[in-house]
Amino acid sequence: MTTVHAYAATESNGKLNPFEYELGDLDPHQVDITVESCGICHSDLSMLGNEWGLSKYPFVPGHEVSGKIAAVGESVTHLSVGDTVGLGWHSDYCMTCDQCMSGNYNCCPSATGTIVGRHGGFADVVRAAAASVVKLPDELNTRKAGPLFCGGITVFNPFVQLGISPTDSVAVLGIGGLGHLAIQFAKAWGCQVTALTSPGKEEEAKEMGAHEVLNSRDPQAIKSAYGKFDVILSTINVPQEWNTYLNALKPQGKLHFLGAVLEPLNIGAMPLIGGQRSVSGSPVGSPVTIRKMLEFSARHQIEPITEHFPMSEVNEAIEHLKSGDARYRVVLDR
Amino acid sequence: MTTVHAYAATESNGKLNPFEYELGDLDPHQVDITVESCGICHSDLSMLGNEWGLSKYPFVPGHEVSGKIAAVGESVTHLSVGDTVGLGWHSDYCMTCDQCMSGNYNCCPSATGTIVGRHGGFADVVRAAAASVVKLPDELNTRKAGPLFCGGITVFNPFVQLGISPTDSVAVLGIGGLGHLAIQFAKAWGCQVTALTSPGKEEEAKEMGAHEVLNSRDPQAIKSAYGKFDVILSTINVPQEWNTYLNALKPQGKLHFLGAVLEPLNIGAMPLIGGQRSVSGSPVGSPVTIRKMLEFSARHQIEPITEHFPMSEVNEAIEHLKSGDARYRVVLDR
Repeated sequence: MTTVHAYAATESNGKLNPFEYELGDLDPHQVDITVESCGICHSDLSMLGNEWGLSKYPFVPGHEVSGKIAAVGESVTHLSVGDTVGLGWHSDYCMTCDQCMSGNYNCCPSATGTIVGRHGGFADVVRAAAASVVKLPDELNTRKAGPLFCGGITVFNPFVQLGISPTDSVAVLGIGGLGHLAIQFAKAWGCQVTALTSPGKEEEAKEMGAHEVLNSRDPQAIKSAYGKFDVILSTINVPQEWNTYLNALKPQGKLHFLGAVLEPLNIGAMPLIGGQRSVSGSPVGSPVTIRKMLEFSARHQIEPITEHFPMSEVNEAIEHLKSGDARYRVVLDR
Repeated sequence: MTTVHAYAATESNGKLNPFEYELGDLDPHQVDITVESCGICHSDLSMLGNEWGLSKYPFVPGHEVSGKIAAVGESVTHLSVGDTVGLGWHSDYCMTCDQCMSGNYNCCPSATGTIVGRHGGFADVVRAAAASVVKLPDELNTRKAGPLFCGGITVFNPFVQLGISPTDSVAVLGIGGLGHLAIQFAKAWGCQVTALTSPGKEEEAKEMGAHEVLNSRDPQAIKSAYGKFDVILSTINVPQEWNTYLNALKPQGKLHFLGAVLEPLNIGAMPLIGGQRSVSGSPVGSPVTIRKMLEFSARHQIEPITEHFPMSEVNEAIEHLKSGDARYRVVLDR
């Protein structure tokens, strides 16, 4: 039996306190990971506040894990004790549905969320199905790699799924934990890159790789870009006048949602029909897409810009993220 | 000079009356078509009522033309006097924008609408750019072919553009002028076909090729189909609880709008993100896609189900379409 030393909230939006629980026997297809670092994602906060009605308490957040394999189940062949790995939003898949058997594990309707109905990575150890755990290339910094496993793959996945071309003009709406990685991926992908962000982030957005920065709070600035973009990746979770962004797309352009906007999108059918445009969304990515992202990140020296807190200061770290001042991803280190 | 004998309204939603106008010299890239038949599309009614703010009066509707080439401009090489042809929503393209030069003429932002700022096919003659005019295969009935050039291509285009596979499960929402052709195309395409329609059309939908019919007015019937469809083609123009239809899609499924719903779509981001789904739309199709549709229709004996009125009874024909009783496309014959 393994005793896990974690941090848990016992009620919605409660403070996190030390919390111990026992892991049962390791299933043949599972591994245990010794957590070295774990990023804090906005969806940890959404789950902490039970905004999606999925949370159970005591609740241990954490689904941007980097660390080392501590134990492997008897059927596991592609991971060994001591391997440096990461774990993201999904910690298991059904492995048999059409989506899994097509390689689209991230679309498995029965996939297990790492922090949904089980305990996550704000802990010394976390357990997961081996299929959901991906090895880190040697070139990546383990302490900074955790956020790639949720924030990173969330914004990388559409480059693969939408078939974004290096000849495309790509806009990233919102330059935060997700957007700052999207800008870097789009630049390395070879695209024309526009950051749509609030005033004050122009210089940073350009350092990340944006060729151009437009003020997302200024309707005239967006209107000046009508018909300009092949793809807009929205990483924000607050309502906007979405038809303005639809009109900023070229014919056949795509407005793709990665941020969990809860309000209805109020999109008009006419700009979709007239321009043969689409509105879409996607959830993280499959393990193979995660592998491709890690190789791509290693090749192009892409890494999250992180701020680090000791895991024992988890509550301070959460407050910092909630303040909106995080630049750009907060990581807990053990 | 050619004097055209047409039917025009002189005010929004006015009755159509005989109206003559002169055609100037034929440009080198243009052709004149002697109209034999012309379908009536819902967008003729929308334009008649200036619902989209694009109408000019006197207004001559008609953009589902079948007929014979009467004259060709000096640069026209692919059409000859006497050819049997059709003309749809577009009567000219800019020919030089990225969309035109990629073959996506239907997405040309400067394309000319046959009844937008010029006179349409409720007439003895209609003029158009030769590039927008497509020859009819001999196997197709000229009198019934007009509706293929707007209603038909509108529902055929997504089979090509979305890459619909014969292994897909396709639902068609609304069995009217568009939907009754969509059902036939989906069946001949090899798909599993579900008609989503109001009660009373079950038998007809099955005769058209639907394997299954669900009552679109019954939320429970749609909920019973959760996760069932790869594609839903919406041919209706009235608001629905669209999230119910999103949830009826499989992961990676597509809700595609062909009917001009004017109200905001009120779609949630979460069903898009969670299932990697998309919402899209498209406008008619390019001339090459129209050619493919006509060949496909000839090969599979697909034709519109039509009701015919003499063109001199155009007002009665419009009233019949407005009544909702048309089965399924109203055509004016000269």
